[in-house]
Amino acid sequence: MFSWGQFRRVVGTVTEVRTSVISQLQLRKIASDQLRYSSSMADKFKLPSRYGTGEKSVWVEYIQLAAEYKPAVNLGQGFPDYPPPGHVTKALAEIATGDNPLLNQYTRGFGHPRLVQNLSKVYSPLIGRELDPFNEILVTSGAYEALFSAILGHVDTGDEVIVIEPFFDCYDYMITSAGGVSKFIALKPKSNSDNMTSADWVLDEEELTSLFNEKTKMLILNTPHNPLGKVFTRAELEVIANLCKKHNVLCISDEVYEWMVYEPQKHIRIATLPGMWNRTITVGSAGKTFSVTGWKIGWAYAPANLMRNLQVVHQNCVYTCSTPIQEAVARSFEYELERYNTPECYFFSIARELMPKRDYLVKTLRENGFNPTIPEGGYFVVADWTNLADKIDLSSEPDKYKDYKFTKKFAKEAGVLTIPPTAFYSEAHKHLGENYARFCFIKKDENLQLTDKLLREWNAKK
Amino acid sequence: MFSWGQFRRVVGTVTEVRTSVISQLQLRKIASDQLRYSSSMADKFKLPSRYGTGEKSVWVEYIQLAAEYKPAVNLGQGFPDYPPPGHVTKALAEIATGDNPLLNQYTRGFGHPRLVQNLSKVYSPLIGRELDPFNEILVTSGAYEALFSAILGHVDTGDEVIVIEPFFDCYDYMITSAGGVSKFIALKPKSNSDNMTSADWVLDEEELTSLFNEKTKMLILNTPHNPLGKVFTRAELEVIANLCKKHNVLCISDEVYEWMVYEPQKHIRIATLPGMWNRTITVGSAGKTFSVTGWKIGWAYAPANLMRNLQVVHQNCVYTCSTPIQEAVARSFEYELERYNTPECYFFSIARELMPKRDYLVKTLRENGFNPTIPEGGYFVVADWTNLADKIDLSSEPDKYKDYKFTKKFAKEAGVLTIPPTAFYSEAHKHLGENYARFCFIKKDENLQLTDKLLREWNAKK
Ligand SMILES: Cc1ncc(COP(=O)(O)O)c(C=O)c1O
Ligand SMILES: Cc1ncc(COP(=O)(O)O)c(C=O)c1O
Repeated sequence: MFSWGQFRRVVGTVTEVRTSVISQLQLRKIASDQLRYSSSMADKFKLPSRYGTGEKSVWVEYIQLAAEYKPAVNLGQGFPDYPPPGHVTKALAEIATGDNPLLNQYTRGFGHPRLVQNLSKVYSPLIGRELDPFNEILVTSGAYEALFSAILGHVDTGDEVIVIEPFFDCYDYMITSAGGVSKFIALKPKSNSDNMTSADWVLDEEELTSLFNEKTKMLILNTPHNPLGKVFTRAELEVIANLCKKHNVLCISDEVYEWMVYEPQKHIRIATLPGMWNRTITVGSAGKTFSVTGWKIGWAYAPANLMRNLQVVHQNCVYTCSTPIQEAVARSFEYELERYNTPECYFFSIARELMPKRDYLVKTLRENGFNPTIPEGGYFVVADWTNLADKIDLSSEPDKYKDYKFTKKFAKEAGVLTIPPTAFYSEAHKHLGENYARFCFIKKDENLQLTDKLLREWNAKK
Repeated sequence: MFSWGQFRRVVGTVTEVRTSVISQLQLRKIASDQLRYSSSMADKFKLPSRYGTGEKSVWVEYIQLAAEYKPAVNLGQGFPDYPPPGHVTKALAEIATGDNPLLNQYTRGFGHPRLVQNLSKVYSPLIGRELDPFNEILVTSGAYEALFSAILGHVDTGDEVIVIEPFFDCYDYMITSAGGVSKFIALKPKSNSDNMTSADWVLDEEELTSLFNEKTKMLILNTPHNPLGKVFTRAELEVIANLCKKHNVLCISDEVYEWMVYEPQKHIRIATLPGMWNRTITVGSAGKTFSVTGWKIGWAYAPANLMRNLQVVHQNCVYTCSTPIQEAVARSFEYELERYNTPECYFFSIARELMPKRDYLVKTLRENGFNPTIPEGGYFVVADWTNLADKIDLSSEPDKYKDYKFTKKFAKEAGVLTIPPTAFYSEAHKHLGENYARFCFIKKDENLQLTDKLLREWNAKK
């Protein structure tokens, strides 16, 4: 067996031997050389300016927080804490140890054939045109890399990109690293009633119109929306579509939560609006679709001339994605297509499964002093915590924004981890998110019940 | 079941209705609008200049070729056509359907904890210093994305990067997309004898020295080398290391073939040379290490200050890698560490397994008119085909370079697919690769024997 003690002894010995043959003077010279190297290295080996200061994302910080404080329930990151559909994981297990050894080796760079063929079968009827599996679909390392390829594949120095706030935080980093300039517009609540739904969060049409100009290259839409749960209506999409067409602007439509839409809402794909197919890149996620966020397979579909640009970026950064996982996602789609018209189909059962969880969390939050926005889609609830402000002392938290202070203190006191929404706003608009916290509800019922218990206990102590 | 006919009928009907209510005049206007859009869209939605013309990589072209011509044996891409070690695939199967549902969900972005901890256990003794799993190691979507993160994380506009030819083709694309300038230097054969080994391919020290200047940010080393199989000697690495230190230059060391080194050669990690740890980023691959190229998990290790820059790039493009695959790679490392000091350990058995395959292929090539360079590492043989030039009519192949013509014609005539090495040279130096073809030998014995048979038959016909 490989022995650590052995290794430490060897290294120890070598160091001693070195020290004994090198004089003190030499040692001092080496030390000063190293110092000189280090400072000039720090200068020379710094992060290229396109990445700004390279700040840590909210995810890195809050995952670390979870690891340190071990909150009793983690409603932070968006993933289920219960098993995905059995046929999905079974497919992966069978592939890994199956008869075809090639399924553990490289596959086609732009997408495993069986997967792109199934993506075409799933989406063609939904968008009302036959998707060419080999030229109009790209498979990526999660929807994340699809967004990266779409943004880097089109945004050039000085291009403007319209981003709707709050936004999935990577959009802005990607735009900036491509040399582009994000132009932000916030969804704002029409009122602050006790019964708000995500439909009450709206864009101001005049403000949106004013953002378009000849530098505008792209608009990024996210529907169903993270974190608000807003499902854009046809009328709202038409406003966006008309502006994109008028100003010849690309639309990236991030639809990773496409199957988590709650009755009576319907998910509308902006690519299906008249004149939009030619200028829309739609992004999806196997992680979200099949409740396996750890699988990190996503895709984009669009006309071939646009996809070509994404292919080049993809070929330049990861080139090809995991074969066994792509094959497993392909088989999972086949399984669901077989039962597409039955209530068991996961595309439809997942929303039925999530709706009571949503309602339970909304009720819990209301009964414990929060003012939640009821989401029409996705699996997050954004809740206003200002009514609790005088119950919690935030002065010990050194963060700049109130929601960071609140979520951290709340995690420590109540044992419930949530995400601060200002992470999803530009610097100038962060005040719009400060009164909120984001809760994820794709969690076991027992953990939602535990949340209820913890909130009651926390409230009782106050 | 989901019905295609049904979908086509619905779409058909909608189109008919539309046509009937829209007049001919309107239709003509729509058509001309679309034309106007299309040409202005093509202008506006073009690939950003950092990606050049976005040419297809050799892999895209040759994988397509394989799909079209279905050659009897494919010695093109570098992956085994036989099963990987059983414990590796078994680990993945167990994880997918195991008790812990979190192993199918998001994990730590910079690397799954169990994997980075095992990478530290594997590499710490090999580099003679304890690697900090959480700050000195990054897990990536294949070694490919590790290279991307290392290059994009350091190369800024106008920076020069020294690239040794022939080179794994993505290096240059990545450097260019970062705004950098590749400076090429070719390994050249000392002679053209019948018994050449990869050690005969060398760098000219004077030429190498002349490439360093104050703009030089980085040098990319690849040892063991793809495609030549060269394993750089300590003396050769010292020349490179001394120049890097003298000019304060970073070294990216692509060591994905670190375990495929043939007796009596030894793999030396340049990070272990005096003064090099501080300026070296070493890249490895689970796909190559465990013969599962389709798994696409790789890593980079380096001092924390350098890794910080890679983390930012990684966080910006894929953010986190597949959890079940990372967990399976972690368990596979644990398995091998348990048997590290036994001959069964895959790190050592793989080279023993590959050596007879290498020798068989070299013999076959020699007996059939090629002049192969015997590789000391990796799993490719580069062979000179000029002695066969008068047996093959390349005039029907429209490609620019002779090796493209040869490999394509040869695939069609002999049924053996290989890769043209000029893909691994800069434009100015492509002539250096034109007389060669690259053969991969990590293939079933029966496929190597079939290669022998096909080459004999082809030769007999000529
Ligand atoms: C709006 C949105 N887009 C994209 C992603 C990334 O999806 P994936 O895990 O497939 O990369 C997420 C993940 O949370 C998301 O919320
Ligand atoms: C020299 C070299 N570096 C990197 C890679 C990419 O490795 P991975 O499949 O882990 O991305 C390869 C693959 O062939 C290679 O040959």
